[in-house]
Amino acid sequence: MAAEPRLARILDFLLLTDRFKTIERRGYIADGSRRETDAEHTWHMGLFALLLHKELGFEVDLGHVLTLVLVHDLVEIHAGDTYAYDEAGCVGQAEREIAAAERLFAELPPDLGASLHAWWREFEAGETPEARFAKAIDRLQGFAQNYNSGGLAWRENGIARERTYQRTELPMAVDPALRSIVEELYRRADREGLWPGDDPSTDRKGGFGPGGA
Amino acid sequence: MAAEPRLARILDFLLLTDRFKTIERRGYIADGSRRETDAEHTWHMGLFALLLHKELGFEVDLGHVLTLVLVHDLVEIHAGDTYAYDEAGCVGQAEREIAAAERLFAELPPDLGASLHAWWREFEAGETPEARFAKAIDRLQGFAQNYNSGGLAWRENGIARERTYQRTELPMAVDPALRSIVEELYRRADREGLWPGDDPSTDRKGGFGPGGA
Repeated sequence: MAAEPRLARILDFLLLTDRFKTIERRGYIADGSRRETDAEHTWHMGLFALLLHKELGFEVDLGHVLTLVLVHDLVEIHAGDTYAYDEAGCVGQAEREIAAAERLFAELPPDLGASLHAWWREFEAGETPEARFAKAIDRLQGFAQNYNSGGLAWRENGIARERTYQRTELPMAVDPALRSIVEELYRRADREGLWPGDDPSTDRKGGFGPGGA
Repeated sequence: MAAEPRLARILDFLLLTDRFKTIERRGYIADGSRRETDAEHTWHMGLFALLLHKELGFEVDLGHVLTLVLVHDLVEIHAGDTYAYDEAGCVGQAEREIAAAERLFAELPPDLGASLHAWWREFEAGETPEARFAKAIDRLQGFAQNYNSGGLAWRENGIARERTYQRTELPMAVDPALRSIVEELYRRADREGLWPGDDPSTDRKGGFGPGGA
């Protein structure tokens, strides 16, 4: 007696997604010993969402936020991770990920596949409150991770403070609480001299981010 | 201007929990190249919960399930992972984890710390529908992970098929859909000869798990 085909198909998908644990991002884990994986990034985003969703100035459904978080990067199982600051790599990224989504979600029973596909599109569009928050958390976790690993990926890739604004603009625009956390991370990174070419003995006089004073 | 102390405290907690990415479990990732970390295990449990919660014979609140999943192993940041089949290591585990929870959750603003502490206790007690499901998923993901890595940890630690029943009993008792998945995993592990001392050329005549026929 075989398991119900529907359940066996879900099981196969769950076993397949183990690959998410080997897809490396550009940023490092805090001790700098290796790059962070997609699975770790997604787990950490979930914890950010859990601990921050009540601090927002707008209401979100936590279950829906966590659903979007769980689904948001799964297409990288087929498309791979694209470094946000790699302009050449970003060319064609949308098309690669759309094709990867078709292929990946087709592995599930049709109703579940359609749900995951719709959640992935909702995250990408970033229009619902839950998708705006999830997208902001995606950027915020990545930025915090680079700070938390001593700015290693910033210096390794020559990412100047100003270039990070393209990634921190969204969380700063989405909500004052997220803005406050981004500003705090800039302050700490400045104080600890984590930017490429920083001389830690010099105090920065600049602002605290894209819209900082 | 410093970030609001409450937000800075949440941020510090989120940075601290990066350690979860370096706490290794006994099981391996699917390609067998290294052990799975707590962060990866928790991420994978989240995906199991998302894809299976609608297959259950009882209703659960997905947001609450995912909350329990996110919180369930965090105390290992201070207490470390205890191997389920290590009887000596399991002595004092409860006391170690209670002390670790006190210490860890005290790092958060008091209201949030109290919430996480309560969710951790709810998971441990396993009485609410969400906690029963989350605990079942914890066991199921671990079992599926050992299958998915070719039974490496079973053979490495001499874990006979019968000893795994203490871990699979819960998901099998909690719901028929989870039982069906566990049975399917036993069937595949048997067919592929993944148990210690297995001769892959011999068909097993045994049952499919603790209560299998």
